[in-house]
Amino acid sequence: MGKNVIVGQSGGPTSVINSSLAGVFQAAQSRGAVHVYGMLNGVQGLLSNRYMDLSETITSTLQIELLKRTPSSYLGSCRYKLPEPEVDDTPFKQLFTLFKKLDIGYFFYIGGNDSMDTIGKLSRYAETIGSDIRMIGVPKTIDNDLVETDHTPGFGSAAKYIAATIKEIIRDGHVYDQRTVTVVEVMGRNAGWLTGAAALSKGEDCEGVDMICLPETDFHIDDFLSRVSALQKIKPSVVIAVSEGIKTPDGKYVCELSDYASFTDAFGHRSLSGAARLLANRAAQSLGCKTRSVELSTMQRCAGHLTSRVDITEAFQVGGAAVKAAFEGLTRQMVALKRLSDDPYQITTCLVPIDKVANHEKKVPDHWITEDGVGVTKEFLGYVRPLIQAEITPFFVEGLPRHIHI
Amino acid sequence: MGKNVIVGQSGGPTSVINSSLAGVFQAAQSRGAVHVYGMLNGVQGLLSNRYMDLSETITSTLQIELLKRTPSSYLGSCRYKLPEPEVDDTPFKQLFTLFKKLDIGYFFYIGGNDSMDTIGKLSRYAETIGSDIRMIGVPKTIDNDLVETDHTPGFGSAAKYIAATIKEIIRDGHVYDQRTVTVVEVMGRNAGWLTGAAALSKGEDCEGVDMICLPETDFHIDDFLSRVSALQKIKPSVVIAVSEGIKTPDGKYVCELSDYASFTDAFGHRSLSGAARLLANRAAQSLGCKTRSVELSTMQRCAGHLTSRVDITEAFQVGGAAVKAAFEGLTRQMVALKRLSDDPYQITTCLVPIDKVANHEKKVPDHWITEDGVGVTKEFLGYVRPLIQAEITPFFVEGLPRHIHI
Repeated sequence: MGKNVIVGQSGGPTSVINSSLAGVFQAAQSRGAVHVYGMLNGVQGLLSNRYMDLSETITSTLQIELLKRTPSSYLGSCRYKLPEPEVDDTPFKQLFTLFKKLDIGYFFYIGGNDSMDTIGKLSRYAETIGSDIRMIGVPKTIDNDLVETDHTPGFGSAAKYIAATIKEIIRDGHVYDQRTVTVVEVMGRNAGWLTGAAALSKGEDCEGVDMICLPETDFHIDDFLSRVSALQKIKPSVVIAVSEGIKTPDGKYVCELSDYASFTDAFGHRSLSGAARLLANRAAQSLGCKTRSVELSTMQRCAGHLTSRVDITEAFQVGGAAVKAAFEGLTRQMVALKRLSDDPYQITTCLVPIDKVANHEKKVPDHWITEDGVGVTKEFLGYVRPLIQAEITPFFVEGLPRHIHI
Repeated sequence: MGKNVIVGQSGGPTSVINSSLAGVFQAAQSRGAVHVYGMLNGVQGLLSNRYMDLSETITSTLQIELLKRTPSSYLGSCRYKLPEPEVDDTPFKQLFTLFKKLDIGYFFYIGGNDSMDTIGKLSRYAETIGSDIRMIGVPKTIDNDLVETDHTPGFGSAAKYIAATIKEIIRDGHVYDQRTVTVVEVMGRNAGWLTGAAALSKGEDCEGVDMICLPETDFHIDDFLSRVSALQKIKPSVVIAVSEGIKTPDGKYVCELSDYASFTDAFGHRSLSGAARLLANRAAQSLGCKTRSVELSTMQRCAGHLTSRVDITEAFQVGGAAVKAAFEGLTRQMVALKRLSDDPYQITTCLVPIDKVANHEKKVPDHWITEDGVGVTKEFLGYVRPLIQAEITPFFVEGLPRHIHI
């Protein structure tokens, strides 16, 4: 069996995905891996022989700490789906030839649903050819939509950024003595975990958002406008959080109701931004007041300057737990987080079979959405609040957070 | 002469404007003011008898520190222009009657160009009626467009937020192995100081932005697209900073070239956002690659969680210096910042006659813009860099920055 490790990052970036990479790297070195290779742009890059030797670039504990504080994917990422190995084994043959050449014994992939699909297919193929390479998935996604894990690393920091920023936007909205409506657009196409996190803005020092529109509930524009109108009668500055993925009852994305051309990228992914802009425009027309739309855009997934220490620590831990599992002989599993208690918050890692995770999606459960459909319950808040706790100090150099990159 | 103080905030909020308020409050108390009144929503609110006694709400040093860390205007703000006192003295009579009732001896107004116009008119009127109320302006604006001062409090923190966020956006842009163009829209309608600050993103750990489009230079869309096209041939991820106020040579705002309806608020201010979105769409059409627009929106002016310690300290100091000047008998002046040296950075406060400041505008000088028109010089960077230095730790409570508000 090979002695070396290879690790990749896949799917959308987060501000703590490199902390998981640091966790894999450090645990692999501790357990005696001579080379820890990094796939460049995930499996897709690896199929073009693109990889690096992390042991050559990460050579100090300072660099490990910088890696933990660097947002986005250090190794680059991809959105690539392997074929079913029974249908087309070409890429599998190519990858396993490379694994042999590099003397790989352990394969780690940090990502979400699609990435777990990759681990599933690779480990199924490994079994059919009798390879003993251990393959473990490391969970990651700001969307928090992976099943079989209490939550996903990346979610807590995005939730913290969203809640902190919305608190600031609420303060900003109170500045003039005039009626205003601000609609803030949050990521999470099918799952409303991040949009729900906007509710964390409410506290002793902040009134919080006035409405939360999740993709889990049907969105009625008329209902939305009449709620905003009613709110405006009792308070001048109304702030609303909406998911980028809200849909009308007939299944149309709100962002696509606009007259603006919807943008489709080279890969056929339609851009889903624009729901907040559309709603702000409609509110302006219907209420005749100043409105503003704010898209938290890529900032919410790459704000390395404002991460949750709980999140960054857990991201590091799931990386280490993956290495431990693989070196102890396990394969075809994903590391998951299991909550032992809410208060005090206690968490442990465990392992779940990869096939129970791949291609599934966890949404906000109905009973965590308030009856009026435009808010989340205190149980939702009790679930999320521990994940945004405590901070990690960025390394500020000349006034800006320092990063590390290839 | 009255013994009490009144202070107001006016114009757009910043993340350090409350630090200036704290500076005025603390210095006024130290010098024996019994009551420190705050105008609610500036002079406009005061004309409706809306004010509070700050001495009753800010009662501890902890609250002063919270005030310094709270973004947006604690007292609320307004965009209100007084008439010429010679033409219509109604509001002046009303205000000075109130000043008498409240036994006001000192008047402070924290704001930008328009606010200095208010101080100018009030002090002119005071002179004509023989009032001895001292009136001093405290500079504030993220736009940094006030003349007669090295820079304005509020600018450094916005610049720091913009540079830090753009560094993160650049990291995010590198994640996939595909061509992308990201256009980031920055505030500053007529002056490009904030857009130029995007250049701070370049450093040992970051390639920086690829192009900077300031409102001081004519914007040619065709030239823009051909530059982006050329950049894309040498690097896959292109990131560009544009001012919200860029204009074509015939004087049209780029954001108004779109097919989207431009939005005009109740006060007749046209919304200027949309330049980045338009340019990202044009680039997508012309280059056939993935593009994204990011608006830093209100976040850049209210990101209290990421301020510059230099800025927040100077904001506090100009508040204190205003009180000192007024109590020493000066009036009709604005506190300004005077740079003694760049390296080491040394600054002092001074006073300038209000009429030299009101209604003037400081733009980025030509010789600080690179010859190709799409960048800033090292002299620009040498000017800005000291202003983003060092951090102030927010007071995190349950994972989020704590604020104070009325």
